Amino acid sequence: MAVYTDVSFEELEIFLAAYDLGEPHVFKGIAEGVSNSNYYLQTEKGRFILTLYEMRVETEDLPFYLGLMEHLARADIPCPTPVHMRSDAVTGMLNDRAAAVLTFLDGISLRRPTADHCHYAGLALADLHRAGASFKGMRKNALGPEGWRKLADDCANDADKVAEGLRALVEQELAALKAAWPANLPQGVIHADLFPDNVLFVNDHVSGLIDFYFACNDALAYDLAVMLNAWCFENDGAYNITKGRALIAGYQRKRALAPEEKAALPLLCRGAAIRFLLTRLYDWIHHNPAALVRPKDPREYVRKLRFHRNVKGAEAYGL
Amino acid sequence: MAVYTDVSFEELEIFLAAYDLGEPHVFKGIAEGVSNSNYYLQTEKGRFILTLYEMRVETEDLPFYLGLMEHLARADIPCPTPVHMRSDAVTGMLNDRAAAVLTFLDGISLRRPTADHCHYAGLALADLHRAGASFKGMRKNALGPEGWRKLADDCANDADKVAEGLRALVEQELAALKAAWPANLPQGVIHADLFPDNVLFVNDHVSGLIDFYFACNDALAYDLAVMLNAWCFENDGAYNITKGRALIAGYQRKRALAPEEKAALPLLCRGAAIRFLLTRLYDWIHHNPAALVRPKDPREYVRKLRFHRNVKGAEAYGL
Repeated sequence: MAVYTDVSFEELEIFLAAYDLGEPHVFKGIAEGVSNSNYYLQTEKGRFILTLYEMRVETEDLPFYLGLMEHLARADIPCPTPVHMRSDAVTGMLNDRAAAVLTFLDGISLRRPTADHCHYAGLALADLHRAGASFKGMRKNALGPEGWRKLADDCANDADKVAEGLRALVEQELAALKAAWPANLPQGVIHADLFPDNVLFVNDHVSGLIDFYFACNDALAYDLAVMLNAWCFENDGAYNITKGRALIAGYQRKRALAPEEKAALPLLCRGAAIRFLLTRLYDWIHHNPAALVRPKDPREYVRKLRFHRNVKGAEAYGL
Repeated sequence: MAVYTDVSFEELEIFLAAYDLGEPHVFKGIAEGVSNSNYYLQTEKGRFILTLYEMRVETEDLPFYLGLMEHLARADIPCPTPVHMRSDAVTGMLNDRAAAVLTFLDGISLRRPTADHCHYAGLALADLHRAGASFKGMRKNALGPEGWRKLADDCANDADKVAEGLRALVEQELAALKAAWPANLPQGVIHADLFPDNVLFVNDHVSGLIDFYFACNDALAYDLAVMLNAWCFENDGAYNITKGRALIAGYQRKRALAPEEKAALPLLCRGAAIRFLLTRLYDWIHHNPAALVRPKDPREYVRKLRFHRNVKGAEAYGL
């Protein structure tokens, strides 16, 4: 949660001159997201988020992310949509960063979603998958099996300092997933990071899906596996099957899972767990103590991974 | 600029139950202020700031600060005003901090105010002084001459590492100010920290005065001296007399300075410079590198202090 790049009002005014948004009335850095700098912006024309893309987001991927949000918003998915400049462009440069203005969404993300929230979030994911089917953009999942291999190599020497036996666990798991990773599941645009942080609610209904900066093309059911990891475990590490059942049922109200997707669910959950385990481990090991963001504990995902390894079939998730 | 204390939506809901503000629709940590944690809060009833008071603010002073804001807002000073709970209280506890909900003000603070902005800001200060005259609360200026002495002692051993000769400069200056500090100037409630950060503008007019957490009773003209230091120097260290003239003239449109206040202005400017020099020096020396806030450079105020020491009379400021 940080604002990495400072923007003065005077710099904002110059940037906004390219837009048809009128006078700015409110402009405040907000503590949201770990990859980018975000400002709440209110002008005569409405409320917006100004995002400056920091190192972690590849500028060449911005047309995919912004194009996807625009496509989804047109299909009534409640997601931020980029505001076009008078030139029609959706990104400009601000303080040496690529920057975009996006529409603002009401809503609050939940720290402890209930089963009902899981139901509506699952439903929103299926809506996103259906609306994404007609999107033409393509982006490979940089944090799929090949990406995991690279992260594991970068963490190998320090992994056991974080948790005893972690290096061996990761190696075993990567070998097992490489051998068994399903290749023929239904593909499409996935969000790939739909944690509770990224789902906004108003009065217990989904009012927004945000942070599309990991979106890519991959197996649709992998997105569900990410959510089962992120939404359905309790703080003590226990899997809450009531939440899992609600999330999957919500999803299936809008998109039925194919038999091969159901069968692959335990493996996809292991893959999703290793993905977040490895990115957190990387950030934990390579963290600069002077940085503004505190890294998240990778051990949370070690516990989740161990749960998935003991699962016998998709029923264990509440399917 | 940081959010020190994290508040979940669920914790917010419990806190808001004591208020009559309806359902929360937006809740975002904002990167504003260095002493407190601030959240932007939008509910069915409007827009607010939720502030959690961190260590730096003495809880016993909150009734003064919040009472003052309420008093000033009633007198049409555009400042945040605390929202009362159903119990009529204006502070509660949230995550072990005292916390308050205040009304939200439109407007943006300027990094590079023009002389026109200085004029309106000076005028707003005089309005604040006039409206504050009928406020009954009392709070001693903790960062007056006695406070400077204590800060100087706490920094003595390290001052010369920050700037050569700084320890001697501070000692000389404190001795000179102690001998000459004016005791009989018109007193009242002062803001004591009215930097450009704390003045909001919409369309070049003042729309808000914020951050009253240094407000106290002291010489009114000292508040003007703080502003001359904060608003009228260029980045290269030069005093901009056009801005100084505009600021003082703006102030005097609403409150004429007494002859003794004019005469004391150079000394008050030196006092204000040493106050910010010492608090910045203290923060610079005692800064925790893992903290979320980067300390401001005290040397900026060494340069300002040297300017004031060479001033022959109040005309030098544009009076």
